[in-house]
Amino acid sequence: MQADLICVGNELLTGLIENSNTGFLARRLWSTGISVREACVVADDESAIGEALDRAKRESDLVIITGGLGPTEDDRTREVVAEVLGLPLVLNQEWLEKMDQFFRNRGVKMPVNNLKQALVIKGSLLLDNHRGTAPGAIVESAGKIFVLLPGPPHELKEMFDDQVQPYLVGKNKTGRTAVKTLKCIGIGESRLEEKIKALGEWELPPISYVARGYEVDLQIKGSGENEEASISIDEAERRLRSLLGDHVYGSNDDTLAGLVAELLAARRMTLSLAESCSGGLLSDIITDIPGSSKFYRGGLVPYNAELKIKLLGIGSELLEKEGEVSDLTARAMAAGIKELFGTDFAIGITGIAGPESDPSGKPVGLVYIAIAGPDILKSRELYLGGGRRAVKERAAQIALDMLRKELMKIKS
Amino acid sequence: MQADLICVGNELLTGLIENSNTGFLARRLWSTGISVREACVVADDESAIGEALDRAKRESDLVIITGGLGPTEDDRTREVVAEVLGLPLVLNQEWLEKMDQFFRNRGVKMPVNNLKQALVIKGSLLLDNHRGTAPGAIVESAGKIFVLLPGPPHELKEMFDDQVQPYLVGKNKTGRTAVKTLKCIGIGESRLEEKIKALGEWELPPISYVARGYEVDLQIKGSGENEEASISIDEAERRLRSLLGDHVYGSNDDTLAGLVAELLAARRMTLSLAESCSGGLLSDIITDIPGSSKFYRGGLVPYNAELKIKLLGIGSELLEKEGEVSDLTARAMAAGIKELFGTDFAIGITGIAGPESDPSGKPVGLVYIAIAGPDILKSRELYLGGGRRAVKERAAQIALDMLRKELMKIKS
Repeated sequence: MQADLICVGNELLTGLIENSNTGFLARRLWSTGISVREACVVADDESAIGEALDRAKRESDLVIITGGLGPTEDDRTREVVAEVLGLPLVLNQEWLEKMDQFFRNRGVKMPVNNLKQALVIKGSLLLDNHRGTAPGAIVESAGKIFVLLPGPPHELKEMFDDQVQPYLVGKNKTGRTAVKTLKCIGIGESRLEEKIKALGEWELPPISYVARGYEVDLQIKGSGENEEASISIDEAERRLRSLLGDHVYGSNDDTLAGLVAELLAARRMTLSLAESCSGGLLSDIITDIPGSSKFYRGGLVPYNAELKIKLLGIGSELLEKEGEVSDLTARAMAAGIKELFGTDFAIGITGIAGPESDPSGKPVGLVYIAIAGPDILKSRELYLGGGRRAVKERAAQIALDMLRKELMKIKS
Repeated sequence: MQADLICVGNELLTGLIENSNTGFLARRLWSTGISVREACVVADDESAIGEALDRAKRESDLVIITGGLGPTEDDRTREVVAEVLGLPLVLNQEWLEKMDQFFRNRGVKMPVNNLKQALVIKGSLLLDNHRGTAPGAIVESAGKIFVLLPGPPHELKEMFDDQVQPYLVGKNKTGRTAVKTLKCIGIGESRLEEKIKALGEWELPPISYVARGYEVDLQIKGSGENEEASISIDEAERRLRSLLGDHVYGSNDDTLAGLVAELLAARRMTLSLAESCSGGLLSDIITDIPGSSKFYRGGLVPYNAELKIKLLGIGSELLEKEGEVSDLTARAMAAGIKELFGTDFAIGITGIAGPESDPSGKPVGLVYIAIAGPDILKSRELYLGGGRRAVKERAAQIALDMLRKELMKIKS
């Protein structure tokens, strides 16, 4: 099956909003064995949407159109699709009531504008939206499938995964492209490629590399029944895992934080954090995981020296002699927060995120990360680049990876 | 002037690589007064590139095409553009020598494949590339401008800024499109549009609305000298600000956190945070600001009740009677962290981010935010939707907005 993607929105054409929907949909479709022929971005404008739609439906079996389903006057997607397909819009009473309830829960009356979001294309399958007032829709017409999704990524992604993907899997008869992603950490993209090349590439299916900060995604591609590679994806995965050892932390949708959460939960162990240079980012990442309150006791962001002394019991002599950014300080932070919060594991992070150094004059990007556990206290010294945000992100990734390795040593 | 963007690359259609070039080019063009009509992504395929190019040159004065300039066989952009414009490719001796030198510097012989990168469209202006072997090009043909740029973002961005932008500024006779973004908070997209509509829209230039969580960006567009609106952008801004009052917190590139940082710095005041349901996100946002250590003393994420009692001095009777998620708890958190960290202002956030409620059975999305200041202790009760991440994000935005309002009351 072949697809065309159309993203509607003036804000995408001025670059005001980064378009993450195209990449998301392309990845999901590709892993379902559906290839994307063309992806375009057009303005909130009836004739622009109409032209893109005409072109897409001439060329592809599946057209996914995102955005322009909001309540304001410039949201025209629903109307244009109805017109191009020659289908009327009808009021969906159920959705109207749902919106009414949505606003009543917030203690306000539904604005009149929102009424139009209850108008749906006749004969379409309505797609529920748990995060907003714009419903999605699937319409089949003249042997082609049209999917309408709202533009906000958090709405679109959930709706696609829960409602559209299962529908498409049922419709796509051309066979599933087998794809597997191995999630790697602690090894650079080039080194990874070198190691894999040395295996003899003829033995493996095609592989792509995508670097994400301190992590690299290794994507192994097959093509389902028409397997071109001399070995299967499963066999390739086995060989790659044995080559790369614990640089591979998971596969497909696994995340480092999710894995650490599972490891902690399985061992009924708890965690606390003392983050200076990462400023709360690691705590934010961990608390994004539903149910994290079961193992995460909490964190401290001691953004000045006094607090390190007062709350973490770090001696002022140590701070004076070694400085706030030092190996011993990171260790004292980890040990101090572990004690204060009474947890099994604790992480201490201190560093210079930049753009300027602190009065000590130590280099920007210098970061110390320490892990305190039941019987261990370990630390690493790192030089991280890429600017303030990148230093914070890499520090958080590396801290999670250090914790992962310690947890793997403990039986659950 | 109007532009079409074409990005060439199979890896963009599988989502393996995130397409950041479209957003970058759109922002740059827009700020130069050039609007983008359509942006599309097509495969490394001669007919796909040719069709997109035909369409683009029919509709726009400027066509920017990126990718497909590499040395491998599937890089076809240069050939297709030459063919569509009916111009021959000629060998550029200078570029050939440059590439030869490039490889010799690396101690290797130039691969034969790279030869094709020295073929340029006759009559084109060659764009130098300091980071790779693919030159860019500008071709003028039949009154239209065609710009060819390599796909790797670090090559493209530098070449655009140094060589293409100055060229386009010289060519764009239609004058600079004046654009202003007003950053609004505390009012929904629909309600905002209702209020503005009531002003009488004929009085205002065209306006777009972009919702970002609890914020909405209001974009006011003029069109330079050929002003279509009956009033200027400045006048429109004045009227909108007077209509919307302190729902407008800034303009253009302003951020709420950046504004709060400035307000705190100007007043030489300090801040601390006690975040339960937002889990460190607000601390992460604040510490993304360079120099935040000047006013931010730090934060605490007390992810369980014990820590609230132990560190923030919240009475266990209060927690038992009111629950962890309550107005009084939020107030006690703000007051407690202010005292503990010795700051001028403090924020306390407690709530149920979901997806499940806590044992109290209070609804998911219920959030209390309190601000403690030199002479105040205020709080709000909120019902936030959109899932765990959205609840965290909105809570952080609203907390910053509450703080902004308090800071504005204090003279700097």
